[in-house]
Amino acid sequence: MSNGHIVIGELFGTAVLILLGGGVCAAVTLKRSKAQSAGWVAIAFGWGFAVLAGAYIANGYSGGQLNPAVTLGVAIKTGEWSTVPYYLIGQFAGAIIGAVLVWGAYLGQFQAHLTDPEVVEGLRDDPAGGPVLGVFSTGPEIRNPVQNLLTEAIATFALVLFILTQGMTKGLALNGLGILLTSLVVVGIGLSLGGPTGYAINPARDLGPRIVHALLPLPNKGRSDWGYAWIPVVGPLVGAAVAGGLYRLAFT
Amino acid sequence: MSNGHIVIGELFGTAVLILLGGGVCAAVTLKRSKAQSAGWVAIAFGWGFAVLAGAYIANGYSGGQLNPAVTLGVAIKTGEWSTVPYYLIGQFAGAIIGAVLVWGAYLGQFQAHLTDPEVVEGLRDDPAGGPVLGVFSTGPEIRNPVQNLLTEAIATFALVLFILTQGMTKGLALNGLGILLTSLVVVGIGLSLGGPTGYAINPARDLGPRIVHALLPLPNKGRSDWGYAWIPVVGPLVGAAVAGGLYRLAFT
Amino acid sequence: MSNGHIVIGELFGTAVLILLGGGVCAAVTLKRSKAQSAGWVAIAFGWGFAVLAGAYIANGYSGGQLNPAVTLGVAIKTGEWSTVPYYLIGQFAGAIIGAVLVWGAYLGQFQAHLTDPEVVEGLRDDPAGGPVLGVFSTGPEIRNPVQNLLTEAIATFALVLFILTQGMTKGLALNGLGILLTSLVVVGIGLSLGGPTGYAINPARDLGPRIVHALLPLPNKGRSDWGYAWIPVVGPLVGAAVAGGLYRLAFT
Amino acid sequence: MSNGHIVIGELFGTAVLILLGGGVCAAVTLKRSKAQSAGWVAIAFGWGFAVLAGAYIANGYSGGQLNPAVTLGVAIKTGEWSTVPYYLIGQFAGAIIGAVLVWGAYLGQFQAHLTDPEVVEGLRDDPAGGPVLGVFSTGPEIRNPVQNLLTEAIATFALVLFILTQGMTKGLALNGLGILLTSLVVVGIGLSLGGPTGYAINPARDLGPRIVHALLPLPNKGRSDWGYAWIPVVGPLVGAAVAGGLYRLAFT
Repeated sequence: MSNGHIVIGELFGTAVLILLGGGVCAAVTLKRSKAQSAGWVAIAFGWGFAVLAGAYIANGYSGGQLNPAVTLGVAIKTGEWSTVPYYLIGQFAGAIIGAVLVWGAYLGQFQAHLTDPEVVEGLRDDPAGGPVLGVFSTGPEIRNPVQNLLTEAIATFALVLFILTQGMTKGLALNGLGILLTSLVVVGIGLSLGGPTGYAINPARDLGPRIVHALLPLPNKGRSDWGYAWIPVVGPLVGAAVAGGLYRLAFT
Repeated sequence: MSNGHIVIGELFGTAVLILLGGGVCAAVTLKRSKAQSAGWVAIAFGWGFAVLAGAYIANGYSGGQLNPAVTLGVAIKTGEWSTVPYYLIGQFAGAIIGAVLVWGAYLGQFQAHLTDPEVVEGLRDDPAGGPVLGVFSTGPEIRNPVQNLLTEAIATFALVLFILTQGMTKGLALNGLGILLTSLVVVGIGLSLGGPTGYAINPARDLGPRIVHALLPLPNKGRSDWGYAWIPVVGPLVGAAVAGGLYRLAFT
Repeated sequence: MSNGHIVIGELFGTAVLILLGGGVCAAVTLKRSKAQSAGWVAIAFGWGFAVLAGAYIANGYSGGQLNPAVTLGVAIKTGEWSTVPYYLIGQFAGAIIGAVLVWGAYLGQFQAHLTDPEVVEGLRDDPAGGPVLGVFSTGPEIRNPVQNLLTEAIATFALVLFILTQGMTKGLALNGLGILLTSLVVVGIGLSLGGPTGYAINPARDLGPRIVHALLPLPNKGRSDWGYAWIPVVGPLVGAAVAGGLYRLAFT
Repeated sequence: MSNGHIVIGELFGTAVLILLGGGVCAAVTLKRSKAQSAGWVAIAFGWGFAVLAGAYIANGYSGGQLNPAVTLGVAIKTGEWSTVPYYLIGQFAGAIIGAVLVWGAYLGQFQAHLTDPEVVEGLRDDPAGGPVLGVFSTGPEIRNPVQNLLTEAIATFALVLFILTQGMTKGLALNGLGILLTSLVVVGIGLSLGGPTGYAINPARDLGPRIVHALLPLPNKGRSDWGYAWIPVVGPLVGAAVAGGLYRLAFT
């Protein structure tokens, strides 16, 4: 596993993760999408199978971490920090590419949605960015930094503790099916802990697409809500650090 | 597998089980949750994947039983009773911790829900505790102790018979994928037999969070419905005992 | 695999199949069930995971066929007919027991449903039996024997061809995960081909519970629709025979 | 793997793929279907498990590609082009047979739907063919050739890149469970990228059934929308070619 392989694996894997994950948010949110009323079950399975697709694509090259919080947890567990920067580079670059691909796949729907008079009116008044930002990044139902941080930290703690206890630093546990199991756990976390903040549980998943939202020339796209942007970065990292620490205390 | 490992495995595993299982009840029930209308399919998959996450976390240390009824069935099958107390300690401690984590993850939603005038009015009049108790513990649609016991016993019978026939006392059957299969059976039991009582099928899953509900300083939280609390303890144990007995009669 | 083992395996397995499969119909149909609005996705997954639970329970003893149509297809493939009677005995006995268990698990809901004035009125006027029969047995949306036979035959053809091509006569293919795959195919058949007739695709699944419906002392239970009862027996057997014949022609 | 085996495998596999895939569209679309309100989650899982059933049926003979875009991607990866014609023959013949089987399974529902006065009126005015064509072939929500091509290409790119990186040219990767994973990725692509065009992601899946729609003697069936027919052929092939090219650049 060379450093170049890590960057390539994480970049392609995270791009597909965000393409499919952002895609399901677009599918369920935007006007003129066939899936507009598919609801939360669709969101949760869409993100879970996005992890499945992206992580298996990356698996042979980088193990398919696709998430700085997972990378932090694995580094705490293994003590191996030298490859961390390559993981992060691939993850953020991939997240940005994936968000652009979502925009490409839903070009007509974005146009239809953002020129709808009702939507335009609503976006102007919504400091949080509204549903179009929601295709790219997460946002809280109730805005409270401490509560939002806590939710993101708890949800990420569950994810990272699961991954660490499966010994899946290379995605090879359980005859290679560890990633399948992880993707089902992500479905579960979405169903169970996504209610308050929309479960970023991954700094790259939230920050990369938010940058794309800020830069894309979408008319009436609304605000990018940078005031919230630090929470889906810090919360997951805190949860991962606690999971890594508890893993070292209790499981070794 | 030392006794300490059993306690640690069951404690972490059951905590994550209840965090995700109670979490999906909160997600679907409480106001200001993004998943509020996700419905029964979300509940069933949420609890099933909660089992998946928790049991694999526990697997290396305790086999991931997470349920006194499963522990009873396994003990009847194997004749090994000396480790049972350690399983129970881990399970109940974990269930209590998990329920506190649900409260932490949904702090804002609990506050919003419990200060909503309509909800408050409804809770005062509801001797069964209403939806806030439902985030923590189960309750019957039609209150009839014999019927409710029978439902819980039948549902747990199916679960425990499945587990015993897979030889999964250590979670190692089927190349380690036995837990995945069990979690899908739990999804199925939820879809199929959850209608009458909300399928506790696990004494720790119901009693631990009920204790937390009784102790948490939530304003207007409603009653903890202690009159019903024995049914989701006794029913599952009866079902597990019948499964264990029939297994010994028919499958050995 | 003794003949006694076959009967025991199929009996327990089919009982759990019908308990969970009939259970999800009760859960989605009957008044005072928490899952009453869960819809067709719940039905399809409920039946699929019912197959998963029942077939793995039976697997060690009988391979988990649980379905006379599957037994016919396997016999055509292998030329081994001597064990067929034992499979059928276990399957029909299990289906009857399973249907009684559904009644036990949903006792209160049946009572509430069948004493509801609107339901009672509707049942009197419905020659097809209405929703209460639907908990036990299948019925067509449009009553046309040729069309209904064709639908059941085509759906069962897909199921049995899948099973035969996986070499799962003993459920041991794919490291024991063949039953998992089959259960997902059953989910798929439910979603895809269940619309016209409710997809019996299994003579024991339909006839056994219909006998129970006819015998159970449920007030206002409606007719058992014996005029339709031959279709979910003959249709699946025809589909299985075609699958077995085509398998021998094309895949050997 | 003889060329005859390839044709047989792909023919049976693609027939079952389209039977179940077209079936779920019929189930959710046509009047008098029990699944009429099952929604987009049913569509996505129905198509995914259709892939599972069809590809495992074909697996022993042809590896279960069932899709000219996958065949193109595999040929670019392996450099082996001589078997491609046999794959295509089996895929298109199978898709046509499968679409006829959907018509057979839903005969009564088609009749009921197409003689409904409201439906008839709507079909006459709809140049795109309306819901009856939608049982057979895909169509865009917003008709824009460049956008529709882009969506189909991006969605197929994700599918084919996944398949190529799993080394599943013969469906044997991951102990034979690669097809299960692929089918879950297809569920994910449906949930995430199906909104704009209904995700053909497979030229045979769209063109074969469209031919059947054009030929079947269905009264009031509406137009076959041949003006759109090239997009679900060209788009997926472009996406597969890009995936194959990027695979060779980045992953070898």
